[in-house]
Amino acid sequence: MTGYAHSKQDHQRRLRRVEGQIRGLQRMVDEDKYCIDILTQVSAATSALQSFALSLLEEHLSHCVAEATLKGGPEAQAKVKEASDAIARLVRS
Amino acid sequence: MTGYAHSKQDHQRRLRRVEGQIRGLQRMVDEDKYCIDILTQVSAATSALQSFALSLLEEHLSHCVAEATLKGGPEAQAKVKEASDAIARLVRS
Amino acid sequence: MTGYAHSKQDHQRRLRRVEGQIRGLQRMVDEDKYCIDILTQVSAATSALQSFALSLLEEHLSHCVAEATLKGGPEAQAKVKEASDAIARLVRS
Amino acid sequence: MTGYAHSKQDHQRRLRRVEGQIRGLQRMVDEDKYCIDILTQVSAATSALQSFALSLLEEHLSHCVAEATLKGGPEAQAKVKEASDAIARLVRS
Repeated sequence: MTGYAHSKQDHQRRLRRVEGQIRGLQRMVDEDKYCIDILTQVSAATSALQSFALSLLEEHLSHCVAEATLKGGPEAQAKVKEASDAIARLVRS
Repeated sequence: MTGYAHSKQDHQRRLRRVEGQIRGLQRMVDEDKYCIDILTQVSAATSALQSFALSLLEEHLSHCVAEATLKGGPEAQAKVKEASDAIARLVRS
Repeated sequence: MTGYAHSKQDHQRRLRRVEGQIRGLQRMVDEDKYCIDILTQVSAATSALQSFALSLLEEHLSHCVAEATLKGGPEAQAKVKEASDAIARLVRS
Repeated sequence: MTGYAHSKQDHQRRLRRVEGQIRGLQRMVDEDKYCIDILTQVSAATSALQSFALSLLEEHLSHCVAEATLKGGPEAQAKVKEASDAIARLVRS
């Protein structure tokens, strides 16, 4: 079982909304919409993707990382390192 | 005509790839994939969206903003302000 | 003359404030302050640095890039490319 | 004792380097350096600040959050929530 088992529906709803935003961007490009309006929509889609990632990350820390901590040993430290690397990729992307 | 008229196909191709990444995320959540692998895919999709935005912005500066500059007057300054606000939203999103 | 000649004092004031925030961070580490409070101060300093950069960039577009556009030729396109590359570094940092 | 007790010197060294970069920015503005060169230096300082934050965050997860997890109870969940909020501020700044 994954750390996000109880919120799968919520995640799927968010991701479908992002998918709708990306299709909206394709329509805007197709209809020659004004560049600035397209960029505004990109910022909205990026923020929505980040919110999804942040919520998934919080569940990962609460479940997967916490379980590894309770077991202890090198696995616990490895999970923190892995989560930290994922956070770094989010901060830098 | 918009500033990105000559690269519409290229933009559509990029956006279809991002759409594929978002559908891939839905599949990953559906199949209970590991959180960290999902987060890696989110970072990739975010970077792809930003690349699209940066390329659109460069065309906007080369065409729409440059044309307004050549016409001069308050419209020129308004276009720079509008582009700067869009850049700020990208930097902060 | 640079594009930001008329706002040098304003820029210096912003940068001195950021410098104060960085010294504040050193003091917090020295006094063993709580990690989360230090991270909050890092976010504030990062936002202040970005505001400085965005304001400098807007002046650059209004002056340096606009002047190159009015002169025309390959230099105009080179200035837009150079500004776009700087924007990409800001978005990705 | 804080989670970063063993790396205080390393953190102070990083922060002094960032302080040097901010002073360098003040000198660049003072000497009317080219906007784009200043923006490049801002990106470098922002990245250095983020590296400091990410390294502090990793220690916070390894120590403070892990200790709260081992104690259990509502405090454990509160620590994860607090760390997640700090991560969200870093991602969005």
